[in-house]
Formats: sequence, C-alpha cells, structure tokens
Amino acid sequence: MKTRQPTEASRPAVGVQKDALRRPRGLKTRRAILRKAVNLASLEGLEGLTIGRLASALRISKSGLFAHFGSKEDLQCAVVDDARDIFVEKVIRPAFKFRGQERLRALCENWLSYGKEKVFPGGCFFSAASLEFDDRPGPVRDRIVELMKKWLGTLEQAAREAQSDGEIRKDVDVRQLAFEIQALAMGANWSSRLFRDDGAFRSASRAILERIDQATEPVRSRE
Amino acid sequence: MKTRQPTEASRPAVGVQKDALRRPRGLKTRRAILRKAVNLASLEGLEGLTIGRLASALRISKSGLFAHFGSKEDLQCAVVDDARDIFVEKVIRPAFKFRGQERLRALCENWLSYGKEKVFPGGCFFSAASLEFDDRPGPVRDRIVELMKKWLGTLEQAAREAQSDGEIRKDVDVRQLAFEIQALAMGANWSSRLFRDDGAFRSASRAILERIDQATEPVRSRE
Repeated sequence: MKTRQPTEASRPAVGVQKDALRRPRGLKTRRAILRKAVNLASLEGLEGLTIGRLASALRISKSGLFAHFGSKEDLQCAVVDDARDIFVEKVIRPAFKFRGQERLRALCENWLSYGKEKVFPGGCFFSAASLEFDDRPGPVRDRIVELMKKWLGTLEQAAREAQSDGEIRKDVDVRQLAFEIQALAMGANWSSRLFRDDGAFRSASRAILERIDQATEPVRSRE
Repeated sequence: MKTRQPTEASRPAVGVQKDALRRPRGLKTRRAILRKAVNLASLEGLEGLTIGRLASALRISKSGLFAHFGSKEDLQCAVVDDARDIFVEKVIRPAFKFRGQERLRALCENWLSYGKEKVFPGGCFFSAASLEFDDRPGPVRDRIVELMKKWLGTLEQAAREAQSDGEIRKDVDVRQLAFEIQALAMGANWSSRLFRDDGAFRSASRAILERIDQATEPVRSRE
C-alpha cells in the first residue's frame, strides 16, 4: 500500500518552462480532478459518481473528463486508488517509523485522527464505499476488498510483530484484535457522521487503547 | 420503536368475504411492495431506490406505485419504517421478555443473528443506510438518526437497568458499552458483507461477550 507519486507540494508551481510543465500539468489536472472526485464521492457516495455528475461539479465538459477516464468504472477505480494514496500518506506511512506495539498504536491514533480531522469531507471514504459496493461485483468492489484486506493485514502484522517482541501476550488472537480495532474505529466514523457527535472518536480511542492495554498487560494481573 | 401493525401471519389468507378483504388486500399490497423495496434498498442502496427502479423490479406501472407513495422521498421514508418494523420484530421485541443483563445479552445475540441470517439480503439495512444518508439532510436522514438513537438508547437502558440491579459494576460507563457493542456488531456486518466472511459474526460475538463479562465481573478479579 505504498505510493511513489510526488505530492502536490513537491511540484514546481510557477517559473518553469512550458515544455517541462507539459506532463506535470496533465498529471496535476488529473490529480486535481481526482481530489475533487474523491471528496464528492465521500459526500454523495461512489456509485453516484458519474462522468456527468463530476463534469457538472467541476464545470468542465464531459468530453474533457472522458479524456482522463474512459468510463464511469475507470473513474471509480481511479478514485479508490487516490483515496488509498491519501490513506497511506495520513495513516500508514507515518506509523512505519515505528515497529511492533508502537506501530500498532500509531496506526490506531493516525486512523482516528484521519477520521476526526475529516481528511475526506464526508468521513472515512472506505467505510462508506465498502458498504456501498459490498453487493456490486466488479473491479471497483475487488479493489476495495483488496485494500481493506491489506489494511487489516497491516494492523494484524504490527500486532504479530509486537507479539514476537514479547510486547503482546502469546495468548492474544492478533487477528481478532485487528478486527476489533477496525470495528471500533469505523463505529466512531459512523457515530460522528450520523449524530454529528465529536465525542465519538474519543469513545473509540478509549475502547481501542483499553483493548491494546489488555493485550499487553501480563496475564497474572488479570487473574 | 414499537409497531402495532398486524403481521402477515395474523391476517386471514383465504375463505373470507370480498368486502372484508378490501382494506387488508390494499394493506397487503403495500406491505408486499415495501418488503420488495426494503430488500432492493439493502442490496442497491436507499438513494438509488426511485419509483421507476422499484416499478421495474416489481414489473408494475410507475403510476400504480405513485398511488401508494407520492414521491421518492415518501417511498424512502416508508422503506425506513418498514425496515424498523422488521428490526423491532427480530431484535428488540424478543429481548423484552427479559430485563437487565439478560435483556442486554438477548439484544446483542438477536442483532448478531439478524445480521448472520441475512434478514435483509444485502446485510444490515441500517448500517448501510446510515452511512449513505449521513450527508443528505432531510426527512429520510432525520428518521434514520432518530431510530439509531433509539436503538443505542435501548442498549444503554438495558445496561443501566443491569447496573441498578447490581449485575453490572457501578464504575462501568454504560453509554460507552452501548457504543462498543454497536460498533462491534456493525463491524461484523461490514466484514461479512465485504469479505463474504461467515466467521465475522463469531468474532463480534466473542468480542461483545468478553466486553459484557468484563462489565459484570467483580472489580477485585481484574486487579
């Protein structure tokens, strides 16, 4: 789940030759379109994101958009990939400075911040998209399934490493732990979006920290 | 969250006079249409449920449907109400035979069975609809918010009663407990739908039971 694409900030904005800009400008336009599309999809749903709807939101022609994305499905797949890049940048990459238990805690904290700070205006893109596409077979669903498996795998792997390092007890089921963390974080996203409840991320954070603490405390203290 | 409408089973099916059937038959048609609409919405999303889409799925005329539901929004609201009736029947009502801790456990078990048995073919209707409508202001969203608040309130109230009865420890935050139960159950629905993972409800059940056990065990055993 790593991306090698340059960030907007790393690209020159002004004062360079036209020729040198040709490709980056095309790239920038595509990225700018995708960013708008991701935000729109997070608010209105991914299924409703048609070439026509996006063209109207961007006030550009449908034919202009077709030059970038050949079909609605291509557009939806590109949007999922763009949302993945944002998620990796905000949640996963910063946690990879650490290992084991520290990485696990960083992944959870970053997820909750990503939800709370409304990185996507409509809340967690993947929580919404995965429920929207769970009954829509095809390449968009396949992509979402693959990414969500990778994400759960990343949580589980960090917990497994912590277990090998002796930080998490041997009797803890790390797959179950990853499931519970993900469920609680998504629950916070759900509650925050539906009830406009700013305390939801605090509740989830409390529950997740308690769960990790229970997994790391020595067995004798719980007997 | 109680319904007073008669169930299909309580109504006579054959052998009664035409006149006596007139009203029930209209009611039955409406209920049959709604049941189809709820199932369709659980698979394809509530926002995509238009009068036209439903008419085509039922192979009846749009004007026939307009006689029952004046607008797409009326239809969506009626679908939410029908889904609520099903949820009350399957999850809430059977748990009200008990009180306190037993009611809380029954509510959780019934929710997980409701998810696992695919009462709605597309998984939990409310998990999907609440994420779909969290950014769509209006009467449909208001209804979903109200129902989800009532549901969380029902869980919390059962836990509070258990606390008054001395079954749940005084230091347990019952609001937090209700949040965690709901998040874990929705996580199971998410995992089961997205990954076609039949074990998801077992994972959630294990997590929820552990959570309730921790809330009910005497403090001294955890020190």
